[in-house]
Amino acid sequence: MSAAFRRIALIGKLRSAEIDAALRELREFLRKRGCEVLPDGETRADLAIVIGGDGTMLAAARELVQSRVPLVGVNQGRLGFMTDIGHDDMLTGVGAILDGKYEIEDRSLLDAEIERQGKSVLRTIALNEAVIGKGSQGRLIEFDLSVDGEFVYTLRADGIIVATPTGSTAYALSAQGPILHPAVPALTLVPLNPHTLSARPVSVSDRSTIEIVLLHALDARAHFDGLALADMAEGDRLVLKRSADVVRFVHPPGYRYFATLREKLRWSEAIEKRVGKSGGRDPE
Amino acid sequence: MSAAFRRIALIGKLRSAEIDAALRELREFLRKRGCEVLPDGETRADLAIVIGGDGTMLAAARELVQSRVPLVGVNQGRLGFMTDIGHDDMLTGVGAILDGKYEIEDRSLLDAEIERQGKSVLRTIALNEAVIGKGSQGRLIEFDLSVDGEFVYTLRADGIIVATPTGSTAYALSAQGPILHPAVPALTLVPLNPHTLSARPVSVSDRSTIEIVLLHALDARAHFDGLALADMAEGDRLVLKRSADVVRFVHPPGYRYFATLREKLRWSEAIEKRVGKSGGRDPE
Amino acid sequence: MSAAFRRIALIGKLRSAEIDAALRELREFLRKRGCEVLPDGETRADLAIVIGGDGTMLAAARELVQSRVPLVGVNQGRLGFMTDIGHDDMLTGVGAILDGKYEIEDRSLLDAEIERQGKSVLRTIALNEAVIGKGSQGRLIEFDLSVDGEFVYTLRADGIIVATPTGSTAYALSAQGPILHPAVPALTLVPLNPHTLSARPVSVSDRSTIEIVLLHALDARAHFDGLALADMAEGDRLVLKRSADVVRFVHPPGYRYFATLREKLRWSEAIEKRVGKSGGRDPE
Amino acid sequence: MSAAFRRIALIGKLRSAEIDAALRELREFLRKRGCEVLPDGETRADLAIVIGGDGTMLAAARELVQSRVPLVGVNQGRLGFMTDIGHDDMLTGVGAILDGKYEIEDRSLLDAEIERQGKSVLRTIALNEAVIGKGSQGRLIEFDLSVDGEFVYTLRADGIIVATPTGSTAYALSAQGPILHPAVPALTLVPLNPHTLSARPVSVSDRSTIEIVLLHALDARAHFDGLALADMAEGDRLVLKRSADVVRFVHPPGYRYFATLREKLRWSEAIEKRVGKSGGRDPE
Repeated sequence: MSAAFRRIALIGKLRSAEIDAALRELREFLRKRGCEVLPDGETRADLAIVIGGDGTMLAAARELVQSRVPLVGVNQGRLGFMTDIGHDDMLTGVGAILDGKYEIEDRSLLDAEIERQGKSVLRTIALNEAVIGKGSQGRLIEFDLSVDGEFVYTLRADGIIVATPTGSTAYALSAQGPILHPAVPALTLVPLNPHTLSARPVSVSDRSTIEIVLLHALDARAHFDGLALADMAEGDRLVLKRSADVVRFVHPPGYRYFATLREKLRWSEAIEKRVGKSGGRDPE
Repeated sequence: MSAAFRRIALIGKLRSAEIDAALRELREFLRKRGCEVLPDGETRADLAIVIGGDGTMLAAARELVQSRVPLVGVNQGRLGFMTDIGHDDMLTGVGAILDGKYEIEDRSLLDAEIERQGKSVLRTIALNEAVIGKGSQGRLIEFDLSVDGEFVYTLRADGIIVATPTGSTAYALSAQGPILHPAVPALTLVPLNPHTLSARPVSVSDRSTIEIVLLHALDARAHFDGLALADMAEGDRLVLKRSADVVRFVHPPGYRYFATLREKLRWSEAIEKRVGKSGGRDPE
Repeated sequence: MSAAFRRIALIGKLRSAEIDAALRELREFLRKRGCEVLPDGETRADLAIVIGGDGTMLAAARELVQSRVPLVGVNQGRLGFMTDIGHDDMLTGVGAILDGKYEIEDRSLLDAEIERQGKSVLRTIALNEAVIGKGSQGRLIEFDLSVDGEFVYTLRADGIIVATPTGSTAYALSAQGPILHPAVPALTLVPLNPHTLSARPVSVSDRSTIEIVLLHALDARAHFDGLALADMAEGDRLVLKRSADVVRFVHPPGYRYFATLREKLRWSEAIEKRVGKSGGRDPE
Repeated sequence: MSAAFRRIALIGKLRSAEIDAALRELREFLRKRGCEVLPDGETRADLAIVIGGDGTMLAAARELVQSRVPLVGVNQGRLGFMTDIGHDDMLTGVGAILDGKYEIEDRSLLDAEIERQGKSVLRTIALNEAVIGKGSQGRLIEFDLSVDGEFVYTLRADGIIVATPTGSTAYALSAQGPILHPAVPALTLVPLNPHTLSARPVSVSDRSTIEIVLLHALDARAHFDGLALADMAEGDRLVLKRSADVVRFVHPPGYRYFATLREKLRWSEAIEKRVGKSGGRDPE
């Protein structure tokens, strides 16, 4: 856990003065610490520091996955699920990591492939989720789902999400999916507004192969992390399995998964005003 | 997979003529096949055949877990989640199993302990779930939850369910919990009517230790599989981890996990009347 | 309640031999009863009989709303929410209605208008629901919602449904919306996969004016009953209020709202196999 | 809207120094304004001012309903759903009301009666909700529900909530019930962890009579506003209808229903950090 990070890639969207200032401050800090600062997207880096929100981190992670560069995120606003150094702690947090005080956490990825008439037409990855959804016509789609060759169901719905533990706190959570702790080796299948009311989220082993065959759709799309996009035609098959690659997150000392959840989902605030044991239901 | 079952325990509640008749038919069949039929609850058996519903199976599984007797269930009505031989297939299914045609599936259990002022006051197991719930006064309870010593949240709710994959299709499903395939090594934490609207089901590794400390409650109870019961006082600590034991299910040939889900949750019927690809949303 | 129906419009999609046969059988029956059978869509009719599913009924209701022709639906498969005469009861049900034995039920409609830079660009109606949803890019949209000029929230979501009581058992139900009995003079606002986990369905008086202003969207669409469609641009305003018109349903004797719900949502079957009061939770 | 309030009842639990101080401050203020301050619970008052949380307000409202004394609530902490004057605005808010600047809002109540073998054994009211729930044994209960004599369903569940619009933001909201604006003349029926997954919340007209007959239960309780309690035996019938009485809330100038919802459900905060239209799903 004490590999020294020397060559650092700095990644941030230059869309605001704040991010620009933070990037300059960090560049200077890194140079003083004797690091080599590489241009954005440099794949020879020992470490990538991403400044921005979870969206920026997600895009950077997708880009760097093959070069196996570990990432750490610095958030400019409230903490993110993936950007767990706050703006005010930037230099302290990055400094600690350069001092060798950090934790490594590998997050699993989906390997996604779309097959049309037996031929592969797209191959990509997803750190958060793969989604098949209805397109702009607003008509529900119909698909078959199977896991390891075992038929699960035929569903009519707005679509379906297949999420990693990392993605379980993103879009899937909005669609009533469960939160999966990153240590659970599972994927979660979350139907989107299913016609069948008893179609509930199902979590399966991340060693499973998940196949979704589009049966009927006026128009349909597949989305990967909200960043890659493909049209889906009737008969198309989306095959999902755990990727051999991982995304490697570097956490500063003191990182706690549930602390982030509490902060992001505001669990911490609900109880702030204890009403005592005699309290009636004082609705939140 | 071809261990011969010779000593068979027959288990069934003698509450109906149908179950009584099925038990007699099965006893005769087993004797013709050269098996020794042991009395109900006999722990030296090679195999226990349970006739009844999932409730009977659950009680038998709890009883036999220490003696490691594998179980197979014969349902008298519709198939159950755990009783996967239908009444009409009883002799065929049991015969196949005696012929060595079967699959073994080990299901994980919870080891549950309640501590009061540092002393253990109850130790039990749960195949489906452990629940802390409000008692008869109808006032919500308040508790702290932690996983592996890491604080998760303080919650005010009607209670909380901690379910195994087996239990994920039982009570936890009614409370909006996710379905966990039995191959996922996880437990799912499902809050019951939580005061904090963002408190969602969380699945954690089944190697975790889960602790729930009751902070405030007018009255509260812990329930295990709906079969064991204990009062909980303020300050009591419920500690849950995966048991070293397992429940061993014997499935007849052709058993499919998702086929049972489809049947039980009626996923299969929703699509029966295909309306064709031009169909508008023809609400179910 | 005993107005005689003499001029009958027969409506059905000629897409199957069954519907064709049913239309012919009904035409003959009506002529024998001395009725004049008018062509499909005829707006001078006293009564429209729709043969098909709820989708066909929905399209017919939209078409006939201005001419105030009452409708009755004959379903070819399982009963529908709006097509409450089953195939086998077709002649009995229609005969009873011609005999003056029927109930009239008026269902409310939405009057929907899209304004762009102060100008109306679309005006339509909706019997089930108006939806603003993300388009094919799969990016969530952001909008402001207000009711009677009072600001409700700014939401980022896949979209939002505004449903009538009739629509509350259609798409809105898939999106976790509540069922509204037709006698409740309300509209229900159901967010689609909202980013804010505490954004829940809200029901407001049907005398309210609901305004939704699209703030940010890569692409977005408005849908009305899944049948009319319009692009929405940033800044567009969708204004919804109860229409001055209604859709008039004619029900045969014995129609019961909750009986249809039980049948469609399979509430009736869940309890079929009573397990007695001692039964543990025998999961469905 | 300009009836003068002269005789004021002050209501507050004397459980904290803060509430005690606020009561004294308010008593002095009222006397200076020439009002007569009556003891707690005085039913001849023109106005009752409640200091505390929603629980205190709920208890006061139940107590004063027959004497038709209007109520206004002053919250000591965060605003409540029913206590809509904040601590810092106490004198300004109460002063404005004394000046005749206020709005009156009547909230509907449930009239609840439990019948056993044809005889009434309890009659009470509920401002928030009536609940039938399982008792301390933790076994689900089974009951029949009917509305205006029409059978709705037989359900096995932990229980059922029947909530007024006022109660729709209290316990019922935790159980996935919809929010009902107070202007909607409806009641909402919310099943608690129902065994049948398709049993969803149903809203019916508040002119309906709702009957719940307990079929099977090891033990069961009825709760009214979490404040009144009754045992329920098998065969008992709970009959609910809108009460002829109402609770009359006095709101200070500027009260907005949706502003309270936004504050209490934290809808307002979710959007604080706008990420711009190009933003990916930056999970909350």
